[in-house]
Amino acid sequence: MKFLNFLHAGSERLGALVADQHVLDLTAAWPSQPAPSSVDELIAGGAHALELAQQAIEQAQLACDKGSTTACLAYDSITVLPPVSMAGRNIFNVGRNYRDHIIEGNLANGRPADAFPKAIEFFTKPRTSLVGHRGEIPRHGLLTNSLDYEVELAIVIGKAGRDIAPEHAHEHVFGYTILNDITARDLQRLHGQWFKGKSLDGSCPLGPVVVHASAIDNPDNLQLSLEIDGEERQSDNTSSMIFNVAAIIAQLSAGMTLLPGDVIATGTPKGVGFAQQPPRCLEIGQTVRARIEGIGELSNTVVA
Amino acid sequence: MKFLNFLHAGSERLGALVADQHVLDLTAAWPSQPAPSSVDELIAGGAHALELAQQAIEQAQLACDKGSTTACLAYDSITVLPPVSMAGRNIFNVGRNYRDHIIEGNLANGRPADAFPKAIEFFTKPRTSLVGHRGEIPRHGLLTNSLDYEVELAIVIGKAGRDIAPEHAHEHVFGYTILNDITARDLQRLHGQWFKGKSLDGSCPLGPVVVHASAIDNPDNLQLSLEIDGEERQSDNTSSMIFNVAAIIAQLSAGMTLLPGDVIATGTPKGVGFAQQPPRCLEIGQTVRARIEGIGELSNTVVA
Repeated sequence: MKFLNFLHAGSERLGALVADQHVLDLTAAWPSQPAPSSVDELIAGGAHALELAQQAIEQAQLACDKGSTTACLAYDSITVLPPVSMAGRNIFNVGRNYRDHIIEGNLANGRPADAFPKAIEFFTKPRTSLVGHRGEIPRHGLLTNSLDYEVELAIVIGKAGRDIAPEHAHEHVFGYTILNDITARDLQRLHGQWFKGKSLDGSCPLGPVVVHASAIDNPDNLQLSLEIDGEERQSDNTSSMIFNVAAIIAQLSAGMTLLPGDVIATGTPKGVGFAQQPPRCLEIGQTVRARIEGIGELSNTVVA
Repeated sequence: MKFLNFLHAGSERLGALVADQHVLDLTAAWPSQPAPSSVDELIAGGAHALELAQQAIEQAQLACDKGSTTACLAYDSITVLPPVSMAGRNIFNVGRNYRDHIIEGNLANGRPADAFPKAIEFFTKPRTSLVGHRGEIPRHGLLTNSLDYEVELAIVIGKAGRDIAPEHAHEHVFGYTILNDITARDLQRLHGQWFKGKSLDGSCPLGPVVVHASAIDNPDNLQLSLEIDGEERQSDNTSSMIFNVAAIIAQLSAGMTLLPGDVIATGTPKGVGFAQQPPRCLEIGQTVRARIEGIGELSNTVVA
């Protein structure tokens, strides 16, 4: 099941993406009241809400098959919102996690190639930076000369927990989505800690959908890639992560309670702009497409 | 005006602290409906709500003077909550900002004493780590051997804004409070980025009150101190900050929209536990009192 938030007649609604073409209006088709109007509300409803979602999907699909134009909408015609709330605590992010990306960063920064992190480098991005699929990434040209891209697998937490053991980590996952960790490299370096370079408005494209965990065989073995105006820049597999999904949840939840609706981005593979010779960062007018196997494509345009 | 959140008969209420002894129940005394039940709701109400707060304070004080036991409560008898919401985006924090604290940290870490940051090192703490005045700080003994204290002046934002010039920064401030940035030093170092060592549950005592900006002559000239079981550990003045309140707001808001209710901690002075010879960090049973001139005292106990 692929869930998303979308706008319909001015109100936010919960939808399901079917065959990457149609969006079923689950808020309208929900078999009881009150109906959830967002992925967050679906998550808050727990296992029972997920059963109702399955019923709503079947009902909407039946209506859709009979030619209803209200039960299912063309994916291309709707306004897709970020699949999590714009409010709430910050997105959690994992720093250097892909072997080849760490090496490219070390070489670009004059460090030994094999200087790998001993523990996960966590930082955050504010939710005010969230942008949905087809949304715009501001270039922030007055602030930065090196706005960079980073495709990442993002975990969406379904069940609260603290001190979660790796072997129980997957019980706390609701699903997965795509995150593009837009980063002002010059600000990231200038300010020492990474938050400033990672927090600009519009610097966190997320979505388009949250795929329920049951539909992902193994999150630690997914192809992911990013292209700019049709040219591939990043391509790797989550199996290249030094810290896998279970390790990330275990380390982050040590002493800190994870909550339903939390989002954890898992790091980016090699091919970012600043490490290229010469560096090739984002420019106004470019279209950035981030893709992850089994989830889909997150597309955004860079604007002035 | 000193505002706080407190619990009364199981519900959260907005109060005003008078003469550091009595708490006026502003939610009960509010002259119109709906009445705010928290400092965040007061802030959201803008200038008009502040006028109503003034009226409510006068009304409650009159009732109090006439002997009412419901209009004003003994400060010592109430449950004080953090003066901002437990939900919402993370607390923003400024890293090394006090000259002598930077030097003590540099010496403790084998760096040149005069290696000062060129720009503000921003990081965040999740609001799940908030603890109110008289609340408990968990020792997290299984996770850390060096839980440290850091008294800090915290700014509470009143008006949204982005790219705020230093000369307009104070227009965006609602008020000030005290923050104790409890830090697991070993985790802070191990994880590279500071978030992990700064994010443990219960690691962000805040309060007791938010003092309205109009009652603080100059936030860049306030004495602040911290004592543990009666022994002074930190004592300095905010005039020792390299980056003052206006500079912090300007740098943080560059490209990132600040929102009403945002909290920004401004860094800590010298005297933290890890820099002492030998290091003296927090232990179970200790009482930590953080004080700032014109705001008051934030007291918390370390528990297992």
